[in-house]
Amino acid sequence: MTLKIYGIAASRAIRPLWAAEELGLPYEHLRWHYQGPETREPAYRAINPNGTVPAIDDDGLVLFESLAITLHLAQTRPEGGLWADDARGVAQIYQWTLWAATEAEPLARQWFHHTGFLPPEQRIPALAEEAIDKLQQRLRVLEEHLAARDWLLGERFTVADLNLAAVLQRLSVLARGELPRTHDWHRRCLARPAAQRAWALRNAV
Amino acid sequence: MTLKIYGIAASRAIRPLWAAEELGLPYEHLRWHYQGPETREPAYRAINPNGTVPAIDDDGLVLFESLAITLHLAQTRPEGGLWADDARGVAQIYQWTLWAATEAEPLARQWFHHTGFLPPEQRIPALAEEAIDKLQQRLRVLEEHLAARDWLLGERFTVADLNLAAVLQRLSVLARGELPRTHDWHRRCLARPAAQRAWALRNAV
Repeated sequence: MTLKIYGIAASRAIRPLWAAEELGLPYEHLRWHYQGPETREPAYRAINPNGTVPAIDDDGLVLFESLAITLHLAQTRPEGGLWADDARGVAQIYQWTLWAATEAEPLARQWFHHTGFLPPEQRIPALAEEAIDKLQQRLRVLEEHLAARDWLLGERFTVADLNLAAVLQRLSVLARGELPRTHDWHRRCLARPAAQRAWALRNAV
Repeated sequence: MTLKIYGIAASRAIRPLWAAEELGLPYEHLRWHYQGPETREPAYRAINPNGTVPAIDDDGLVLFESLAITLHLAQTRPEGGLWADDARGVAQIYQWTLWAATEAEPLARQWFHHTGFLPPEQRIPALAEEAIDKLQQRLRVLEEHLAARDWLLGERFTVADLNLAAVLQRLSVLARGELPRTHDWHRRCLARPAAQRAWALRNAV
C-alpha cells in the first residue's frame, strides 16, 4: 500500500515529505491543515490521537511525531542512503535528532510564536528575545561541530541533517553573529533537489 | 572499557543511569553537577560541547542528549530486553521518545521553572498554569493509549516506557483530573528494581 503522509507542507509535515523525496518513495499526500476539520474526525484520531499533523500510514503502520517518522522511513529504507552504517552513526543520528527536538525546536518555536504566530496582543517581546539569545549558544555548538566535517555525521548527508535543518528552517532570521559554517551547511541541505521538491509543495494548491 | 555516565542522578542523567541498571551494565558514575566546574573543562567539552549533563563514553563512543543515550544503550544491548523485536516496535519507540521530548518535556520543564527552579522573583505564575493546562491534553492521549495495553508498546516494558516515565517523573504533581491508567503505569515503571536503584543514587553522596 502506498505510503500516506497527512498534513500540509506548511507544517511539520515538511519533514516526512522531504524524507520521502530523498528516499524516492511514492506517497499519497493528504493535504490537511493542522486546524482543519479532518484532524478532528475519529478516523484520523485513530491514526494520531493528538489530532496534530503530520502522521503517516506506512502499509498499516501508523505513526505520529515528525522526527520519529523520518527516523522510521530512513531506517527501513537503508538503500535510500539516509541511515548510518554502524552503531556509532546510528547513535549520532539519535543524538542530533534529540538535540534538534530539545535544544533547538522549543526556542525556534518560542521565537516564532511571539513574533508571528500568535495574535499581536498575545505576543511577549521579552520571550522572543530570550529565545533568540539562548538559541545562539546552541548554534555555536553546531558551528564548532561543522568545523571538522561537511555533514553532522561526517562525509555524507543523513536523516540527522534532514531533521536538524528542517527544525532550523527559519535559520536565516534566527541566527545572530558570525556562523558561516552553519549557514553554509543549511544552504547545502535546503538546496538538495529532494528538499526543493518538498518545499515546492508549500506553494502548490 | 567500562561505560562512563557523566552527571548527578538529580539531573537528566537519571535516564541513562536507569537504562544501565535495567540492562545490567557495569558503569562508572561521574557525579558532576550541571553547574559544576568539571562541565566547563575542555576535556568535558570534547565529550559534550553543550557543557550539559548527562553524557556518556561507551568504549570511545561519546554521546550527549539523555534520550538518545537510552535509545543507543537499549539498541546495542538487545539482550537486555528494552528494545523492540521488529520495525513496527522500533518505530513506536521513536514515536514515544519524540513525543516525550516535544509534547511532554517542554511543558513539564516550564511548570518546574516557574514553580521551583527559578528564583521566586523570576517566576511567572501564568506560565506555570499554561503548562499545566496544555499538559492535561497530552496526558489524556496517554490515558487512552494505555486503555488497551499495559506498556506503551504492548505487553512488555521497553525503553519507550523508560524515556516517557522519566520525562514525567513529577507526574504526581503535574497531572490533574482522573488519569488512573497513567498513574498506574507510572507507578509500575518507577517500582521496577532498576528504577529504584537509579533513584537511590540521588540520595547517595
